[in-house]
Amino acid sequence: MAALADIAPDFARYLIEFPFGDIYSRPGLDLRSREIATIAALTTLGNAAPQLKVHIAAGLNVGLSRDEIVETIMQMAVYAGFPAALNGLFAAKEVFAARATA
Amino acid sequence: MAALADIAPDFARYLIEFPFGDIYSRPGLDLRSREIATIAALTTLGNAAPQLKVHIAAGLNVGLSRDEIVETIMQMAVYAGFPAALNGLFAAKEVFAARATA
Amino acid sequence: MAALADIAPDFARYLIEFPFGDIYSRPGLDLRSREIATIAALTTLGNAAPQLKVHIAAGLNVGLSRDEIVETIMQMAVYAGFPAALNGLFAAKEVFAARATA
Amino acid sequence: MAALADIAPDFARYLIEFPFGDIYSRPGLDLRSREIATIAALTTLGNAAPQLKVHIAAGLNVGLSRDEIVETIMQMAVYAGFPAALNGLFAAKEVFAARATA
Amino acid sequence: MAALADIAPDFARYLIEFPFGDIYSRPGLDLRSREIATIAALTTLGNAAPQLKVHIAAGLNVGLSRDEIVETIMQMAVYAGFPAALNGLFAAKEVFAARATA
Amino acid sequence: MAALADIAPDFARYLIEFPFGDIYSRPGLDLRSREIATIAALTTLGNAAPQLKVHIAAGLNVGLSRDEIVETIMQMAVYAGFPAALNGLFAAKEVFAARATA
Repeated sequence: MAALADIAPDFARYLIEFPFGDIYSRPGLDLRSREIATIAALTTLGNAAPQLKVHIAAGLNVGLSRDEIVETIMQMAVYAGFPAALNGLFAAKEVFAARATA
Repeated sequence: MAALADIAPDFARYLIEFPFGDIYSRPGLDLRSREIATIAALTTLGNAAPQLKVHIAAGLNVGLSRDEIVETIMQMAVYAGFPAALNGLFAAKEVFAARATA
Repeated sequence: MAALADIAPDFARYLIEFPFGDIYSRPGLDLRSREIATIAALTTLGNAAPQLKVHIAAGLNVGLSRDEIVETIMQMAVYAGFPAALNGLFAAKEVFAARATA
Repeated sequence: MAALADIAPDFARYLIEFPFGDIYSRPGLDLRSREIATIAALTTLGNAAPQLKVHIAAGLNVGLSRDEIVETIMQMAVYAGFPAALNGLFAAKEVFAARATA
Repeated sequence: MAALADIAPDFARYLIEFPFGDIYSRPGLDLRSREIATIAALTTLGNAAPQLKVHIAAGLNVGLSRDEIVETIMQMAVYAGFPAALNGLFAAKEVFAARATA
Repeated sequence: MAALADIAPDFARYLIEFPFGDIYSRPGLDLRSREIATIAALTTLGNAAPQLKVHIAAGLNVGLSRDEIVETIMQMAVYAGFPAALNGLFAAKEVFAARATA
């Protein structure tokens, strides 16, 4: 977000206000489920690798197991095709490896 | 699936074998989470309304509340844009209404 | 938006707050240009016909000519392919016809 | 294309000039292969049902068998997901049925 | 385009003839608006970073301000989601930085 | 596929079983046509460069000429837009160059 400070400072604020202030804080769905939904969406989009990695890490932080994340991504092969799922798995592999060496 | 019988009977079989036989039956993720992931994916795709309705109904069948489904779809505004979320909400409205009158 | 009242009343509010309260009201880009950008985006997405029609009408309301709207949509053939542009043109034709008979 | 005459007459001309004049007439790939490629692309896009139906009919006209068309569409489940393939198969079913009764 | 010379020389010609010869030269929409539409489309697609950077530079060249470009891209969060807008802003940041040091 | 061994070993198996065991081995469409369909699909998706390169190489292996592959990718400009076709051509250029120096 710091990277946006000089080019679009208000967008950095929107990124906090709408997704996090308005959506993630709503009571109707627990955070684990929200991260599963987001990992599914970003794997499906297939062109948002940086954001997918952020949310794989966020998923671990709210208590998802690596297995649950891998299962979510694998399942996307059914709906978005094998390339999308495969690229999602490689993103997960990178995040898990970075955690292992941290 | 019956509709596929005369044109692509093997595809009807694949639809059962791969998504359901191979993926949904795997132990690493519970069915409620799997339906959340699928509803998120189909809302994100934005061009699979019939399948989205099937999985909104399936979500209710495995114990998701209407609220949890609505929250999942609304959250997609962040990742796939407001039109995708809006069209997803209208699909949910249709499924909920059909249940209410059944 | 009234259609959302019973299923996702907060989403109706977000639809006003974020796109209109936060984005369209910003001073850096005039409304005609904002509608051109939105018509281009919705034509490119290709799966948001209801929203595209709303914004073709909104474009006329903020002073875009029919020609400017048609040119914007035609140009999308270059970036999103001929089918997306063609479906966008048919949406415009519908909106223009409804205006003519209104 | 007649439907474009009043709204975007030049686009009707581009539709003939670029895809057909420039691309399909090129010698490096036979027409059967070109229709397979187009059916694959339109099934993958998933939001261009009218154009997909036109090209399923065009495929039959240049000598593709129904089986070859069905196989092409089914294969898209691997790359674009099952919903895209499924919706493509229903488009094919419609075109085949219309031919049978013509 | 030079990079296409050995593999697809005709495509380099089409790239000039259709987008520039046929579309951008049309009288119905000024070049500033055309670049806004294209920046919106390429941000929405989300998988065409090289072309987006070319058109951000082209936008500056036809008189768009940095603010107008940033506003156009930010607005895409509404229609194509925050990741698409975010990746578009990073592309703009790169183009602006390259200009500053040129 | 070896890269999947530690994170999702079953997915590596599915990648063989469903696309190759179930789909590519079916008798109704020859392998050359199947690779044309896949190259068309992956060019259209636009976010699966690694898989596109694999299938451009596979296309050469089953007897497609470089010209046939280039024509297939160029044709995608009509359906998925010029950026998708352009990025596909660059992928082909890379694969052809790697072959030339192998």
